[in-house]
Amino acid sequence: MSSEPGISPRGTLFVVSAPSGTGKTTLCKRIVDIFPNLRQSVSFTTRAMRPGERDGVDYFFVSPQTFADMVAAKAFAEWAEVHGNRYGTAIKTLEDWRNAGCDVLLDIDIQGAAQLRKTYDQGVFVFILPPDLVELRRRLEGRGTDAPEVIERRIANARREIPECVHYDYLIVNDDFEQALNRLTSIITAEGCRTARMLPTLAKTFDLFR
Amino acid sequence: MSSEPGISPRGTLFVVSAPSGTGKTTLCKRIVDIFPNLRQSVSFTTRAMRPGERDGVDYFFVSPQTFADMVAAKAFAEWAEVHGNRYGTAIKTLEDWRNAGCDVLLDIDIQGAAQLRKTYDQGVFVFILPPDLVELRRRLEGRGTDAPEVIERRIANARREIPECVHYDYLIVNDDFEQALNRLTSIITAEGCRTARMLPTLAKTFDLFR
Repeated sequence: MSSEPGISPRGTLFVVSAPSGTGKTTLCKRIVDIFPNLRQSVSFTTRAMRPGERDGVDYFFVSPQTFADMVAAKAFAEWAEVHGNRYGTAIKTLEDWRNAGCDVLLDIDIQGAAQLRKTYDQGVFVFILPPDLVELRRRLEGRGTDAPEVIERRIANARREIPECVHYDYLIVNDDFEQALNRLTSIITAEGCRTARMLPTLAKTFDLFR
Repeated sequence: MSSEPGISPRGTLFVVSAPSGTGKTTLCKRIVDIFPNLRQSVSFTTRAMRPGERDGVDYFFVSPQTFADMVAAKAFAEWAEVHGNRYGTAIKTLEDWRNAGCDVLLDIDIQGAAQLRKTYDQGVFVFILPPDLVELRRRLEGRGTDAPEVIERRIANARREIPECVHYDYLIVNDDFEQALNRLTSIITAEGCRTARMLPTLAKTFDLFR
């Protein structure tokens, strides 16, 4: 622990996972507006840019060759191939923000989170759950965007993914959106009060390690 | 982890300590109004009841002999003698609330917290700090209740006690009261979302340990 003047504590990595249809994306969008110091991580992808997407905002769009070079250079904290496209989180993306004292929010699937847990065990892992599978089905059907067989696949995935929640630090049941948002807000605020996080600043104020 | 019907998770013990003049008592009073499920622990004491105090509300008032019998019976989670009077927290007080599923708030001095940490290491330990010692002195003087030598003693105590904060889980700097209250609220909400705390309920909903 340093008490050097100007040394600021490094940011915390918050990893958020959830089965499809649980409201994770909306929660993550809202939470970055609440904490000015919290930055949502931008992933690299090999898939084509869609209309309305911006490079460096929605994703960093790169060629398959660039992505393969980054994999070879161990530049990714986690990466995966989904439907023939590759997606990955660069270590540099996370570290640059953290070194600047910003917290980083990573909205990521359960497999990606499992990879991250090996290298970022000091990260804070949050799993969002539906109230139950009956309600999850009701919500997926209510969106009116998925064919019945897609809904069945999402339910089957959720059933397989939910037991993985035991490996996360915090569980949030998204029964009521505002309450779930309040819980996520509380977790981020509370983690900012952790002793290890507070000590670099306080050590100087109170001359703790004299 | 049990998934038996009717099994509810046990309550969490929150231990709050702070140097004198930091606003701990006011924070604790406000926080129990925010969480209906959070009960402030009532201590046993041998000191005489003061006007306006109620037995079982402010303290459990007992004779020195009863207190000594309880010490001998190892009935206390922590106890101390202050200015010739004894004060102690009964294990039964904490366990009865926790077994009823209530969280328990314990507003306790640093020595008492150190005793508790040995037996309740699953408790959540929160330390409240003043912004700095200059501001602490300003606040103590502003109260207008303490003689100069009492203020000096409180400042000297704070200087001695603050380094103990490194043994706590969370640190809250009470620079702004509402912000400090929000941080304490967040810690209690976040701890309620901890995976170990949530699993007893969720295991049943999602049949997690089949």
